[in-house]
Amino acid sequence: MQEKPMWPDRRLLDLLGIDVPLIQAPMAGAMDAELVIAACEGGALGSLPCAMLSGDRLREQAGIIRQRTDRPFNLNFFCHKPAAPDARREAAWQGRLALYYKEWDVDPAAPLTAANRAPFDAAMCEIVEDVKPKAASFHFGLPAKALLKRVKAAGCVVMSSATTVKEAVWLEQHGADVVIAQGAEAGGHRGMFLGGDVAAQPGLFSLLPQVVDAVRVPVVAAGGIADGRGIAAAMMLGAAGVQIGTAYLFCPESTIAQPFRDRLAEGGDDTTAITNLMTGRPARGLVNRVMKDLGPLGSAPAFPHAATALAPLRAAAEKAGSGDFTPLWSGQSAALGRAMPAAELTRKLAEDALNRLKFPASR
Amino acid sequence: MQEKPMWPDRRLLDLLGIDVPLIQAPMAGAMDAELVIAACEGGALGSLPCAMLSGDRLREQAGIIRQRTDRPFNLNFFCHKPAAPDARREAAWQGRLALYYKEWDVDPAAPLTAANRAPFDAAMCEIVEDVKPKAASFHFGLPAKALLKRVKAAGCVVMSSATTVKEAVWLEQHGADVVIAQGAEAGGHRGMFLGGDVAAQPGLFSLLPQVVDAVRVPVVAAGGIADGRGIAAAMMLGAAGVQIGTAYLFCPESTIAQPFRDRLAEGGDDTTAITNLMTGRPARGLVNRVMKDLGPLGSAPAFPHAATALAPLRAAAEKAGSGDFTPLWSGQSAALGRAMPAAELTRKLAEDALNRLKFPASR
Repeated sequence: MQEKPMWPDRRLLDLLGIDVPLIQAPMAGAMDAELVIAACEGGALGSLPCAMLSGDRLREQAGIIRQRTDRPFNLNFFCHKPAAPDARREAAWQGRLALYYKEWDVDPAAPLTAANRAPFDAAMCEIVEDVKPKAASFHFGLPAKALLKRVKAAGCVVMSSATTVKEAVWLEQHGADVVIAQGAEAGGHRGMFLGGDVAAQPGLFSLLPQVVDAVRVPVVAAGGIADGRGIAAAMMLGAAGVQIGTAYLFCPESTIAQPFRDRLAEGGDDTTAITNLMTGRPARGLVNRVMKDLGPLGSAPAFPHAATALAPLRAAAEKAGSGDFTPLWSGQSAALGRAMPAAELTRKLAEDALNRLKFPASR
Repeated sequence: MQEKPMWPDRRLLDLLGIDVPLIQAPMAGAMDAELVIAACEGGALGSLPCAMLSGDRLREQAGIIRQRTDRPFNLNFFCHKPAAPDARREAAWQGRLALYYKEWDVDPAAPLTAANRAPFDAAMCEIVEDVKPKAASFHFGLPAKALLKRVKAAGCVVMSSATTVKEAVWLEQHGADVVIAQGAEAGGHRGMFLGGDVAAQPGLFSLLPQVVDAVRVPVVAAGGIADGRGIAAAMMLGAAGVQIGTAYLFCPESTIAQPFRDRLAEGGDDTTAITNLMTGRPARGLVNRVMKDLGPLGSAPAFPHAATALAPLRAAAEKAGSGDFTPLWSGQSAALGRAMPAAELTRKLAEDALNRLKFPASR
């Protein structure tokens, strides 16, 4: 009789009530309830990105998830301190984009409104209290004390991302039940909230064991993990589980447009960079035209205002099938991605990781 | 009777005739034969960095190694294309350093000669042919065809570093027997030789499995690995072995000065950056004053000429116990380092990795 393979670390499974120690990463603008449901059905913790949703839309999406799966899921929010608009910086930014406005024949004086990216607030907290998701995860730190207390009172496991050991220790001290160690390989916004030095951000091989040594709560590894080998490796470094984003973008359930999907499929190990130009905060994505032309890191309005001046360019370019001004968030392991339904992908990731843990030399 | 734990992958052990699938990284300017011998005696492949040695000194050091250990070892060389001096760029660089010259009261017009960093040539090749080391490793690509042929004819296993998948494939196609996948976490010079975009350099979690998928030769993982957990994780990602540098700097056998040793001991996950200011080529080190003041990446003379104008400042500052102008090469996992003799460290790394591979959940 063959023994059923077991996960070496059950902390995350027990805490979250899931079968696979895997969190499907919330990816604002790239997914909705469909991906959450499929990841949950595969045994992972599905995550709904809420930072760009209105209250009504958030309630609707959570309702769909509840209706279609009885598995635990996660609601994810940003909790940055919103920066006041700065007309001078925005004008300077528009100035840097002037050639593009001309080329695409769009009027910078009448820009479209960029998608809202609001920090977690009392209204969102009320929804969390109503929905009572198994987990609530945050990016850019944690909500204010009173709000966090309410989230915990609603029964949510609280998780947040750390990009340095210092941030991990801060998160544990301020009430996080799980710390997500976000290596520099990760796609999307860096969770950075205690420092702004992109050049000093550690890769996952360095960050993960140092975070594991520094905190007592379970640590989830994020960044560059896209197959079973990566899950097994993260567990060797002490992770209780992993968070995977980019690999799920390949699934039919993700909502990314075809040009983005095509670029992802061609993505290599060295086709992304961390940029602050798209939103005002450092985030990793496939190098697009604006990142290439201007250099990925430079002066741009504070988060999320950099996106405002780009919005009309993005709209015009996307209409023409171009991602020149679109944030194409991706980690450095897109080349490991395979297009398959998200529930199937989740099961495959788990099976491959378990096999790898049992037979390390398998190719 | 307890079974002796076994390495899941024997390719590197068999190819190099070593007991532990570990290469002690060559670290020019930070070590000599003593560290090589101790690492070899611990069961690893010791590596002598030769890029800054004269022919006589290289012969002497190799002789000491041969005399004191009968284990296999590695000679390491640079193989960059030397850049012609560029008086204008060097003058501009001296101009950026003007305030420091004043502060330290040194004469920029009469700089000390910086340490030589010569590429592998016929004279070095002759020494390799005489010494016949088990392995010869290269940084910045591979030597010219005729020289490489002679190295192979001398019986050396040829190894070189790749910082991208493209470089790994190139190395295999041009005769490397082993590819070292150098993640962005690694200390010292980036092995980059097919591109210069530091922002696109992948972390080891992304680079390693993609290189393993792309080549047939054994892949050695480098960057951010400093304990048994890291070795076990690298093997999960498909590495046949690892290369470890920074962790060996803590050993009494390394030759680094006390101020550097002190800075290393305080090193954290986010205290290094990749800089081109110290030598003209991108390399990761603890952030020193010149990196902090000028920003780590900027205009400086081509490799190795940036070091020339820094040499008198470095000499004056080091005399005063300061590392303000010294390259303090270190990876992002210095915090995992422990001061112990190199042979003992090597045995401990192996034991911890084997235990981890057997019991993944151990803390």
